[in-house]
Amino acid sequence: MESNFLQLSYALDTFYFLVSAVFVMWMAAGFAMLEAGLVRSKNTVEILSKNALLYSVACTTYLFVGYNVMYPGDPISSFLPNLSFLLGADNTVEAVIAGGDDAPYYSAMSDFIFQAVFAAATMSIVSGAVAERMKLWPFLVFAVVMTAVIYPMEGYWKWGGGWLDQLGFQDFAGSVVVHMAGAAAALAAVIMVGPRLGRYGPNGQVRAIPGANLPMATLGMFILWMGWFGFNGGSELKVANVDEANAVAKIFVNTNAAAAAGMIVAALLSKFKFGKTDLTMVINGALAGLVAITAEPLAPSPGLAVFVGAVGGAIVFFSVMFMDKIKIDDPVGAISVHGTVGIWGIFAVLFSNGDATFMGQLIGTAATFAWMFIASLIVLFIIDKAMGLRPSKEEEMEGMDYNECGMEAYPEFDHKQ
Amino acid sequence: MESNFLQLSYALDTFYFLVSAVFVMWMAAGFAMLEAGLVRSKNTVEILSKNALLYSVACTTYLFVGYNVMYPGDPISSFLPNLSFLLGADNTVEAVIAGGDDAPYYSAMSDFIFQAVFAAATMSIVSGAVAERMKLWPFLVFAVVMTAVIYPMEGYWKWGGGWLDQLGFQDFAGSVVVHMAGAAAALAAVIMVGPRLGRYGPNGQVRAIPGANLPMATLGMFILWMGWFGFNGGSELKVANVDEANAVAKIFVNTNAAAAAGMIVAALLSKFKFGKTDLTMVINGALAGLVAITAEPLAPSPGLAVFVGAVGGAIVFFSVMFMDKIKIDDPVGAISVHGTVGIWGIFAVLFSNGDATFMGQLIGTAATFAWMFIASLIVLFIIDKAMGLRPSKEEEMEGMDYNECGMEAYPEFDHKQ
Amino acid sequence: MESNFLQLSYALDTFYFLVSAVFVMWMAAGFAMLEAGLVRSKNTVEILSKNALLYSVACTTYLFVGYNVMYPGDPISSFLPNLSFLLGADNTVEAVIAGGDDAPYYSAMSDFIFQAVFAAATMSIVSGAVAERMKLWPFLVFAVVMTAVIYPMEGYWKWGGGWLDQLGFQDFAGSVVVHMAGAAAALAAVIMVGPRLGRYGPNGQVRAIPGANLPMATLGMFILWMGWFGFNGGSELKVANVDEANAVAKIFVNTNAAAAAGMIVAALLSKFKFGKTDLTMVINGALAGLVAITAEPLAPSPGLAVFVGAVGGAIVFFSVMFMDKIKIDDPVGAISVHGTVGIWGIFAVLFSNGDATFMGQLIGTAATFAWMFIASLIVLFIIDKAMGLRPSKEEEMEGMDYNECGMEAYPEFDHKQ
Repeated sequence: MESNFLQLSYALDTFYFLVSAVFVMWMAAGFAMLEAGLVRSKNTVEILSKNALLYSVACTTYLFVGYNVMYPGDPISSFLPNLSFLLGADNTVEAVIAGGDDAPYYSAMSDFIFQAVFAAATMSIVSGAVAERMKLWPFLVFAVVMTAVIYPMEGYWKWGGGWLDQLGFQDFAGSVVVHMAGAAAALAAVIMVGPRLGRYGPNGQVRAIPGANLPMATLGMFILWMGWFGFNGGSELKVANVDEANAVAKIFVNTNAAAAAGMIVAALLSKFKFGKTDLTMVINGALAGLVAITAEPLAPSPGLAVFVGAVGGAIVFFSVMFMDKIKIDDPVGAISVHGTVGIWGIFAVLFSNGDATFMGQLIGTAATFAWMFIASLIVLFIIDKAMGLRPSKEEEMEGMDYNECGMEAYPEFDHKQ
Repeated sequence: MESNFLQLSYALDTFYFLVSAVFVMWMAAGFAMLEAGLVRSKNTVEILSKNALLYSVACTTYLFVGYNVMYPGDPISSFLPNLSFLLGADNTVEAVIAGGDDAPYYSAMSDFIFQAVFAAATMSIVSGAVAERMKLWPFLVFAVVMTAVIYPMEGYWKWGGGWLDQLGFQDFAGSVVVHMAGAAAALAAVIMVGPRLGRYGPNGQVRAIPGANLPMATLGMFILWMGWFGFNGGSELKVANVDEANAVAKIFVNTNAAAAAGMIVAALLSKFKFGKTDLTMVINGALAGLVAITAEPLAPSPGLAVFVGAVGGAIVFFSVMFMDKIKIDDPVGAISVHGTVGIWGIFAVLFSNGDATFMGQLIGTAATFAWMFIASLIVLFIIDKAMGLRPSKEEEMEGMDYNECGMEAYPEFDHKQ
Repeated sequence: MESNFLQLSYALDTFYFLVSAVFVMWMAAGFAMLEAGLVRSKNTVEILSKNALLYSVACTTYLFVGYNVMYPGDPISSFLPNLSFLLGADNTVEAVIAGGDDAPYYSAMSDFIFQAVFAAATMSIVSGAVAERMKLWPFLVFAVVMTAVIYPMEGYWKWGGGWLDQLGFQDFAGSVVVHMAGAAAALAAVIMVGPRLGRYGPNGQVRAIPGANLPMATLGMFILWMGWFGFNGGSELKVANVDEANAVAKIFVNTNAAAAAGMIVAALLSKFKFGKTDLTMVINGALAGLVAITAEPLAPSPGLAVFVGAVGGAIVFFSVMFMDKIKIDDPVGAISVHGTVGIWGIFAVLFSNGDATFMGQLIGTAATFAWMFIASLIVLFIIDKAMGLRPSKEEEMEGMDYNECGMEAYPEFDHKQ
């Protein structure tokens, strides 16, 4: 019976992991819809292609290289080449029913796919920030390096048991390891490619460039919210006993509460500051709440989660405006949502998690930022020399879709002049 | 082993509850897409904002107030203030492994989130009915009162163990407690705000106001259908033994069968009465089938579920036309889908559930309707005096988006004159 | 305890089956969005109606007839009429806790809904291929016969334990049984209705007919990808021990890897052959990878899964172009994605599954193709005589939406002349 019980427990934990992975995979659609809704129609096919292809690139490179860089000590893989993993090895029944602290309690394959979709999510953050003016294939080359090496390296520092983990850096599901990391790479890319043509006037004024399809962008937000239950909930890594089930449930409650609070605060600020309720702020407020709670969705009470999310919603509101002031052109607000708010999230861990220290959080954030930003900058510089990151002015004016993909997103509809 | 078994069973039931909650949360996206597709483009951003914000408002108020109003006897919370819950208490391992009839068998946090998304769903029903002419922030103020007090009060009557439950009123997943309740509030709101400008001609003729984006509306239907597996399936509250697993599976089969039958019947009626297959009727037929089976998705055989759904599809077809005859302007047909068909659903319980009585169902329906309608009317009246529910004629003509949100849903596309 | 354990294991397997069924049901939305995005706006409402209604028709006929044709030996149903099933019978606790090889280990109802959504998926393949020129109701009549008899008959041959199964034909989740079968029926339908007006010029040149809404089509691809985790993952039929949990996890990894590889290869081919990255090829490459791995998602190593998917992506690229060369007009590429690549998938089984033989795969494929193609052709011929399959030239020019549904998908937007 003991062995039967361990097997069933293993099966439940694996299934929970797999369902979580499906929800995180689904976030790829969320990013795609969000970004497709927030760009102009002439750049829509290209951003859809970018989002679809970056997901595929991330999953493939992470399979062949990234996973092993990030988790070198994993029993089913050796450092390089990770042949046993590629050949499909997984935990044996014997190892599982032996029980004890070292016995595996979920499938290694389920762990792989859960980790792979995190790599893809990190890359998705970049695509939004450089939308409308970074060429498709140079972007995908960057995605290869990013998901094979750059992200897995800093992922290893924390989640693979590296030096940040040993230092006591606390980041439950990745406010910094995923979100701020993605935003740091995005910042490097935005600096490399520069703002969109016409975004900033000669006297520094900001010209609004409205997104072409706001229902699509809103759908993207809902998809991301849904997927985040897998993102944070799955990061508990175990559900199969009372304490773990309670933990996963609390993570769900806190994740939802923070997102709701972030949205409400961003909407209120928009209403009071502009007199109008800006839907893009509503969307980014929710995403900010989600990013903020990601560093510690378990320890806070639901009441504290509301607070953490609410502050996230306020931060994103001001950060989006600040980025335009310093001419960081980010069409979807990705750097603010994932970066600025990610930093808030990592320090908000200090309110509820006694293992976190201010210095630990600071070093973890600074080191991750430095690595992601500098490594990305170097790689993007090389790609720029080799392939060029940005299309010509004429091509950008015509739109990415025509030049990169040879097709239109909405070919039948007349456009306003 | 016994204790291990109880823990694992608790974990499975909790996980099942959480997955169900994710699917019900996803229904918020379904309502948003459905409504965004069925309104005119000039009112799309506003309806998206409404749907997004009402979800956040519902989850937040339900956390601080509504849940405790609805489930005052819950061991982890006291009536008011529900401090222990806000502080994150959940069942202890000791209580679970003690076993017996009173032992908790799933996480209280998982119960909370499952209940919270139900409150949001109830509120979503209202937004569709008052689309295109009710101001955003007055609507959200109403959402606060609705999800903090009005809905939880009648929810308490039935699901919290109140007088309707003791009377023998049977409503498994909420044909009346959620759907007709939402429709009753919607009816009050529609009466308060009146029909859209131009909807009814001087001689009572009905002018069609087509929705701007039918693929979006169809997507909304599919999302709602998907989410309903969580809505009805999760309402069994337990899956972790043979009888319960069979019950959840049967609920899935019946829910799907009723929706399918409702859609087919509404499509056939549309084809035979109009000569054309009206897609909005197809959509509402499916939703009607879902609402109809919600009051009792477990007891019927699949054959009976087909019948219950099919009649729901017929009822919604005639109800939508009837509402226009009495000048109840409901842009998405929410009052018919959730209200008229909800009443059919509650009486259809009598076919298969021996515990239901005609009088019990009648009293439950009448009391719920009266409470929801009158309480909503009073609250809306106060909000109208304080803030005004409806924009000016000029603002309504210009569209809600421009005035409420300062942006357009599809800013690039030329509109027909 | 043994009995408790068997009950809990039954509950987990049933829940896993139900969650898988939800994901496969969700694929109906994926097909709907994919097809709605790839047709012209004047045919969008009709294709949405077709997709919604075919799902409902499939579920209903499969409940009353198809399931029993496909699984006649199922203990809870007799050949015809399947009264006990329609009356809601399921496995008893006694049968489950008896244990042993013959004891049922998941709910029969959960099996039914999982199988029903497969029938719907098969039918969805047809709707895309005949989009824009096959009338709605004749199509639905075909759907009745297809999901009641034609598909269940060949499904019985393999999955119901019929002659192909006894012959050793190997098709894990249906590269042939579902996908190529659907494509064979689609081919028959395309031959019956002919190409769209204006698709082929007088000298055989192919005129591009771009889809009206590519974000919608991309969303469809993501939905299908997500749903495929249920499609392939659920086809393992069991998760509740270490070996089974590992198997399901490996299926997830392989399914994802094949899709990613298929997308990348199709994108690269498009870029190198056309100089542009055609988003519809990107989409079809991913779907090709998914179809290719469906026949055997368990036995391959992840490395081999990448190869199987990659070749699928290459095949779909050339197949789509070849179909136009022979004037098989397939607006969404369904025959190539599901048919040509399905055949590749079934033979790719030989690389990893030692039980498969070349002759077994060949006979299974040929027999399934012959049956599906000929039976569909006969039924469509009869429907054509009785109702007519194709609208008049004038009606086709005006668009299916106006004539079939009396409404427009995007009524407000001006169309280019």
